[in-house]
Amino acid sequence: MTDDMTDLATLPGTHAHVWEALARGVTARDAPCRFAVLATVGDGGAARMVVLRDCDATAATVEVHSDLMADKVAELRAEPRATLLFWLPGDQLQIRLRARFDVVSGATVEARWQGIPNGPRRAYGGMPPPGCALATPSDHDDTPQRDRFAVLIGAVQQIETLHLGTPHRRAVFRRADGFAGGWIAP
Amino acid sequence: MTDDMTDLATLPGTHAHVWEALARGVTARDAPCRFAVLATVGDGGAARMVVLRDCDATAATVEVHSDLMADKVAELRAEPRATLLFWLPGDQLQIRLRARFDVVSGATVEARWQGIPNGPRRAYGGMPPPGCALATPSDHDDTPQRDRFAVLIGAVQQIETLHLGTPHRRAVFRRADGFAGGWIAP
Repeated sequence: MTDDMTDLATLPGTHAHVWEALARGVTARDAPCRFAVLATVGDGGAARMVVLRDCDATAATVEVHSDLMADKVAELRAEPRATLLFWLPGDQLQIRLRARFDVVSGATVEARWQGIPNGPRRAYGGMPPPGCALATPSDHDDTPQRDRFAVLIGAVQQIETLHLGTPHRRAVFRRADGFAGGWIAP
Repeated sequence: MTDDMTDLATLPGTHAHVWEALARGVTARDAPCRFAVLATVGDGGAARMVVLRDCDATAATVEVHSDLMADKVAELRAEPRATLLFWLPGDQLQIRLRARFDVVSGATVEARWQGIPNGPRRAYGGMPPPGCALATPSDHDDTPQRDRFAVLIGAVQQIETLHLGTPHRRAVFRRADGFAGGWIAP
């Protein structure tokens, strides 16, 4: 905790802390960055919980998986710009990634599909498709469908952090200047 | 936990569970619904953590407070439709409220302002305003400003729940039919 708070007192430390926390979210099921909120424009602001599946600090990219027929895919195809929001209670740190998402499916994502066990594959596919009316919840066939598996790859354009320490520290890092970063008013 | 899971097996039980959880979020600092994500359209999908300040199950309204100069206020004035998202880890339940937000400030919210202690009042006001560049985080004057206090009142149009039990249960309740509710495919 002391190290974390030292990290968050500088811009390079804050930037490094973000990517380290995201990397832990990818690999550790109980890490705070395992789950994020993906906020899309939708029909009025839309949001849902997602799982962070991969990240790359050098390329500044993040990866989320989805059923190809989920609303978020249609929404990202209409407007690829979205926010991925993380909350780290132990650090009292909010991380907001503004990213531009590509929806990738088909043969390109075969290697990813092969890495997913049978149980979790049931998140991709299912009849009727997401959002259709059901008489009861058990009237849903969740057989996995390989062709419904989509990888959402976000190219991070901006990272914004808000650390609720004393003082509150808010920073913004933009791809345009190599994520050099600057402090802004909270 | 057993009671909760029984609640979530029926539509009226799910609807009641949502409002009970929201009410606990308003009054209990450690309740899972204390914090929510407010997702607005913004310039691409935008999102941030907020605190649930009040809710009314009968009127189907929720309340969040903000600095009048925060981006979320400008975004809600441009597009009042937004999503308030909650995640209840103990219940494995996601709650999504689609609401239309009014921004209220000035004399109308005087009683609310009087109820806020001096420390938390520092969230409303401050110079320079939110998002302006700072040389260091301590270059921010967080003196409270009564005229910068805004109450965001959301009239809930739709409640959507996703319960990650077995089977997954997803329900939608709409204001248009008195929140009668129906099951939909997850």
